[in-house]
Amino acid sequence: MKIAIIGGGPAGMTAASRIKAIRPEWQVAVFEESQFVSHALCGIPFYVGGAIKHLEELCVYDPEFFKKERGIEVYTEAKVIEVGNRYLISMKDNKELYFEWDKLLFATGSKPQKLDVENEDLEGILSVGNIKIAEEIRRRAIKAENIIIVGSGYIGVEMAEAILRLGKKVMVIEAQERPLPEYDAEIAAILKAEMEKNLNLKLSEKVVAFEGRDKVEKVITNKSQYNCDLAIVAVGVSPNTEIAEGLVELGKSGAIKTNSKMETTRENVYAAGDCSESINIITKKPDWIPLAAPANKMGYVAGANIAERELIYPGSLKSQLTSFFDIEIGKVGLSEHEAIREGFEVVSAFITSRHCAKYLPGGLLHLKVVADRSGKLLGIQAVGSGVSMRIYAASALLYNNCDVQSLFFTDFPYYPPSSRVWDPLVIAARILFRKLNLP
Amino acid sequence: MKIAIIGGGPAGMTAASRIKAIRPEWQVAVFEESQFVSHALCGIPFYVGGAIKHLEELCVYDPEFFKKERGIEVYTEAKVIEVGNRYLISMKDNKELYFEWDKLLFATGSKPQKLDVENEDLEGILSVGNIKIAEEIRRRAIKAENIIIVGSGYIGVEMAEAILRLGKKVMVIEAQERPLPEYDAEIAAILKAEMEKNLNLKLSEKVVAFEGRDKVEKVITNKSQYNCDLAIVAVGVSPNTEIAEGLVELGKSGAIKTNSKMETTRENVYAAGDCSESINIITKKPDWIPLAAPANKMGYVAGANIAERELIYPGSLKSQLTSFFDIEIGKVGLSEHEAIREGFEVVSAFITSRHCAKYLPGGLLHLKVVADRSGKLLGIQAVGSGVSMRIYAASALLYNNCDVQSLFFTDFPYYPPSSRVWDPLVIAARILFRKLNLP
Repeated sequence: MKIAIIGGGPAGMTAASRIKAIRPEWQVAVFEESQFVSHALCGIPFYVGGAIKHLEELCVYDPEFFKKERGIEVYTEAKVIEVGNRYLISMKDNKELYFEWDKLLFATGSKPQKLDVENEDLEGILSVGNIKIAEEIRRRAIKAENIIIVGSGYIGVEMAEAILRLGKKVMVIEAQERPLPEYDAEIAAILKAEMEKNLNLKLSEKVVAFEGRDKVEKVITNKSQYNCDLAIVAVGVSPNTEIAEGLVELGKSGAIKTNSKMETTRENVYAAGDCSESINIITKKPDWIPLAAPANKMGYVAGANIAERELIYPGSLKSQLTSFFDIEIGKVGLSEHEAIREGFEVVSAFITSRHCAKYLPGGLLHLKVVADRSGKLLGIQAVGSGVSMRIYAASALLYNNCDVQSLFFTDFPYYPPSSRVWDPLVIAARILFRKLNLP
Repeated sequence: MKIAIIGGGPAGMTAASRIKAIRPEWQVAVFEESQFVSHALCGIPFYVGGAIKHLEELCVYDPEFFKKERGIEVYTEAKVIEVGNRYLISMKDNKELYFEWDKLLFATGSKPQKLDVENEDLEGILSVGNIKIAEEIRRRAIKAENIIIVGSGYIGVEMAEAILRLGKKVMVIEAQERPLPEYDAEIAAILKAEMEKNLNLKLSEKVVAFEGRDKVEKVITNKSQYNCDLAIVAVGVSPNTEIAEGLVELGKSGAIKTNSKMETTRENVYAAGDCSESINIITKKPDWIPLAAPANKMGYVAGANIAERELIYPGSLKSQLTSFFDIEIGKVGLSEHEAIREGFEVVSAFITSRHCAKYLPGGLLHLKVVADRSGKLLGIQAVGSGVSMRIYAASALLYNNCDVQSLFFTDFPYYPPSSRVWDPLVIAARILFRKLNLP
């Protein structure tokens, strides 16, 4: 059997490794456009901010490891230019490489979205699209005087901290009325206050153009204009599906349609990771959830199924964690406004509480739990101290379709320096008991 | 309706509050032997070590709060000396106080176990039985030269750190071959190494007597003898059931037998907290789990049922967290040796992994997952860095009777500084897939 995998990121390399583990005699070839494989894009802000010294540290393994230790053929700097039924053509060192496959996996990932405004291609305007660009951002940021980040999703927030850690001033421009707009306003307000202490945050402001001769000099918004010699555009990503279009169907989200075995609409063709749809465990509907941990697991499931060991991918909760200096921020499932948009009738509890015993030092935790009218949990968001342990627990509860009673009765461990005897999760459940007329 | 509650700790005060919230017109009287109510024994080591300045901080609320804000009659320093059908007698200020009840709750808690050896009543030999004793331990520890802690369960380990934080040397004597003997050897070994760096740890050594004239001077073991001017005995607790015996049945554990509504074997008599049995969610059998978080929830459930709002207590997982200086330690469900003792056929995975992305600073996490041959999770233990978030998540998974597939597929959030793209929990699940021949 000959297996072709397009894309050497987390999903692609996990699938390749899984296939070779189950079917060591099969030929598995990975075609990767960049010079890196198994790269960890989530680490880029830590390189830019200086916590990581070498770009190579952002790759879990290098291509040689996959070749020697796992018997995988890895073609780096090999852009696939054509995919047809049972064959593909890639360009490597200006030569065409023709490969016949029996099974194919699209693991082409995602790419940064463009603002689609005038002069967006000027020098000095960058997006966090691959790990190579991290070097350029860092190099330019060290010299720049006026750095503007457009967008305040996860990447925008993390890049803002990274640049501040370089001792630079930062302006962040966000089109929505709050940073991390996927979160509800109560949670985002805490982050907003913290950001405003550290940087120049412009909300409800839209970038409409860039200006500059050789390189970017100004960012023009619907409200004002700002001097700028480095602009980082972080306004989301979109799935890399160009090469797949025509061969397989795309879903509503624009990502490749898949079933729970990561099969596309064409036989023997699979998709996994950021280019692919998967089930949202809360809505039960196909969704596009471009995150690293689900990408790895989708790759694992695709690999198992390609290797003829049936395995079902149950979907993702869109669990996320980030931080901004001392405050942690996390979310799993739906925020209240997302739940309403999905048609749920919701009830919610928002609390602010010490994250540990009140007699010991520790910060505040702000927590919001969203449930439907039957008491089923739909999502949990948190900001402040002690966030990651609550979002970890919340992920396990939401994965199991739990209700507010389970949130209340789950026996969380109590230890004064790190938790509370009535955990904030449990307190929030009690508030929902009242709202839902439960005992 | 007249409700009597014996014991003003977490279970008793939670139940009292719940009853008054549902039935404000009912009379609720709490009889507490000490001068404190809603006391947090778990905080004692932090008082001894100096992190907390005032004992009162260890009480969530004072008696006046419960009287004024919640309308609960609170009798402190009121020892109950007799309980009969529909009445009790307590001693307060050398006077007998007679109270007729329609419903009664035992919330009498637990007491430290004795070693049952010669001269155990000498001055300078103390147990962590109530918050008042914390003052004496601290006062004596500051002056003492040779401090010996007998026992290395949670209290022994936490008290050892507290004493070390006072700048004192400590010897810990443990009869078992490892500290925290409920944990498996792989996990306890990490703690053992850390303890041995900081104190004199004697394992597999049994205290057989104390010696001294006016006060303790020596601890005699089966192997040696040691000078000692302060001994802290922390060899476990036993349920306070004396006053309940005769009126209600005790279970095999020696604690009061209850059903899932916290009803005892006698009508209109309830029990909750450390004096009471409850269901162990893993074994499905009655168990005695004297921990603060379950005690509060049992109190909540008892209160709801006393107030005629049916509520079921699903049981406890015996979730626990502690730490010793920089390492955290946690456990939920059964360790491997506990599972074998319970008759399970087990399979387990033990891994050591960075707790966060390898390219960022962070410590090691040692994790052990125990499952039965069908793949059902039985317990998770961890030691090192990043423990609390994994034990929180593990508690949610075990509460939901999850199997290793759920452990693998739960969508945990990934953020390089605090977690891993393949979380150690997920890696452990993969190892169990192999051992169980899953895909």
